[in-house]
Amino acid sequence: MQYPGFDFCITDQASDSAARCATITTPHGDIPTPNFIFCATKANLKAMPISAIRAAGVDIILSNTYHLMLQPGSAVVAGHGGLQEYSRWRGPMLTDSGGFQIFSLGHSSVADEIKGRRTGRGNMLYGISEDGARFRSYVDGRAVELTPEKAIQVQMRLGADIILVLDECTPYHIREIQTFEAMERSHRWALRSLQAFQEAGGVGSAGLQSLYGIVQGGIYRKMRQISAEFAGEHPFFGTAIGGCLGSSTQEMYDVMAMTMDYLTPQRPIHLLGVGRVEDIFRGVALGIDTFDCVAPTRMARHGGALTKGLRLNLHNAVHVNDRAPIDVTCDCATCQEGYSRGYLHHLLKAKEVLAMTLVSQHNVRFMVRVMLEIRQAIREQRLAVLAKEYGVAL
Amino acid sequence: MQYPGFDFCITDQASDSAARCATITTPHGDIPTPNFIFCATKANLKAMPISAIRAAGVDIILSNTYHLMLQPGSAVVAGHGGLQEYSRWRGPMLTDSGGFQIFSLGHSSVADEIKGRRTGRGNMLYGISEDGARFRSYVDGRAVELTPEKAIQVQMRLGADIILVLDECTPYHIREIQTFEAMERSHRWALRSLQAFQEAGGVGSAGLQSLYGIVQGGIYRKMRQISAEFAGEHPFFGTAIGGCLGSSTQEMYDVMAMTMDYLTPQRPIHLLGVGRVEDIFRGVALGIDTFDCVAPTRMARHGGALTKGLRLNLHNAVHVNDRAPIDVTCDCATCQEGYSRGYLHHLLKAKEVLAMTLVSQHNVRFMVRVMLEIRQAIREQRLAVLAKEYGVAL
Repeated sequence: MQYPGFDFCITDQASDSAARCATITTPHGDIPTPNFIFCATKANLKAMPISAIRAAGVDIILSNTYHLMLQPGSAVVAGHGGLQEYSRWRGPMLTDSGGFQIFSLGHSSVADEIKGRRTGRGNMLYGISEDGARFRSYVDGRAVELTPEKAIQVQMRLGADIILVLDECTPYHIREIQTFEAMERSHRWALRSLQAFQEAGGVGSAGLQSLYGIVQGGIYRKMRQISAEFAGEHPFFGTAIGGCLGSSTQEMYDVMAMTMDYLTPQRPIHLLGVGRVEDIFRGVALGIDTFDCVAPTRMARHGGALTKGLRLNLHNAVHVNDRAPIDVTCDCATCQEGYSRGYLHHLLKAKEVLAMTLVSQHNVRFMVRVMLEIRQAIREQRLAVLAKEYGVAL
Repeated sequence: MQYPGFDFCITDQASDSAARCATITTPHGDIPTPNFIFCATKANLKAMPISAIRAAGVDIILSNTYHLMLQPGSAVVAGHGGLQEYSRWRGPMLTDSGGFQIFSLGHSSVADEIKGRRTGRGNMLYGISEDGARFRSYVDGRAVELTPEKAIQVQMRLGADIILVLDECTPYHIREIQTFEAMERSHRWALRSLQAFQEAGGVGSAGLQSLYGIVQGGIYRKMRQISAEFAGEHPFFGTAIGGCLGSSTQEMYDVMAMTMDYLTPQRPIHLLGVGRVEDIFRGVALGIDTFDCVAPTRMARHGGALTKGLRLNLHNAVHVNDRAPIDVTCDCATCQEGYSRGYLHHLLKAKEVLAMTLVSQHNVRFMVRVMLEIRQAIREQRLAVLAKEYGVAL
């Protein structure tokens, strides 16, 4: 299958790792990679106006199908001309298929499970069948069904440039055979997703779209191989690495590496839901092109400010009288305006929402700069040197 | 008393009303009047970065002594170089004396009382004596005392350009004699405030300051006369109209008018806590120079968007599919970016704090424009015509 309006062009290849620079072309603009996709879950990057996102140098954002299909509904977004117009971002966007959130409802929380944690969240997943999944809406409690076809239909209405097949996300604490069965079902769902996409002509509410496949297989090399080869055999524009990545950082790196052994390098590769700076350096060195994670912005809203090699907790009373900005070397709007750590501490303590905006725009700019530096380092064949500056041994 | 660094210069006088244009010069910049003072209660205009406040064309903001003396404390603000540096606003600022908030603790809520409403708020005011008032901190419950001298000391540490004497605010539902006694005590407190200010040399943490007197006297013409003449006889830089303004809009206009009959016109005149567009037109026609009110920003945070002659409730489901901005003729950042009513409705419904920022910057710009138009209209001798455009009969 062709993806008109889209292109993936590798421009630089590291000599000492699989790291590469590339450009993903989409109808709403180009994305230089490696890059970070910021999470605008409900069609907004929390507490940040589009002007601030642009000013921070962001290239691409993502929204969540699960949240938006329930509120305001994909038809409403389509009526507004798609997510790009609705949010006023008007740049490249990605939507996930909703699978991750829905299946996390059933297993305490897949997000927790994937990291090996156990929580007691109530079960809002009614059931999974070959057809799809039924779950309870977090907005109004009504029963909602999501099938591969519906996931595509909803994402075509939402209109993001890059959309994903529906997959079944399995947690860490299940048996190998269950992971296998879920992977096989995910493959069947991927084919149904692809067919629905092709039948609809690949044109969403905001123009042409491209479809990514997702690699499952949990922590098992053989399954990762099967799933990666499956994805590669079908005409997806790109590949996302999904599913359970293990219960420790080391296990995650192992799963990332074993998956990359079998992935088609000619397509853009996205790692779902991973975004710590050290994880990004590891992923980039393996040849992964894009990453996403709520951490930089969620952390910001709770007073966690990112700096090179150190996370600042602005809630800490040590900052009360500190007149310095978060980072004197930072060119973000917050540091450039001269907002002090002491003032940000005050806003956080007083529960002023302005704190969310100010720390978020710092963290977003921080991540944008990390990715800029990574691309520069790859071009100059010194990724490992840069990683070391961030305290990461590649 | 002289106020070095300050000046008040009347530039235009309406021929058919007492309305006037003037300039208040302060060490942090000039304020063209009539003007609106936006409320940055806890040293920030909620949900709006300084860059957005500047972009909206704001000339002056105010912070509340009551809130800031408790959190983060005036010494902390002084250590940061005063409110202007702390907040990064770096323009003209005003602080109130804390009296209004403290006395509102004792009488259910003076804010409600002044508008003739009754509520059941618990009593957090321990007592009022000739010396001052004792109250319970809303932050940590400890007992705090505020005297006229302390109100000045705290405001000098906060460092606003314009500061206010401590006054006792009385509610609507008390006897005339109590209003009289409170007024007389407020006068004694005003003299103590003035003395404390003079003894300290009028220099706060951010440089030279000026002191406003406050006119009390409730709804009684004779008392308003006594209080206005008292304020005029003492060397305050400006005069604020405070106290109970009655229980209806008409009564408020009557109190405003009777007070203006006795006020020194050579000084800037501020009307405390009043800021509906119709009230502003009335006040301007009486010769009032500045106004403040939380309404434009508070309303915004709850989805109320100001337009000429109409308040839009963006929470209303009628907006779901509306692709139009709040006001097609508006030049605020929100309308110019093209954020639609439908999208703002979605953000409000999803409880996204970005909605607060986007609607606030619209309402702030709306008020700034109203004041710009009022100044222009006074210069062109057509204030009544402009008022009519806003549905106000002068």
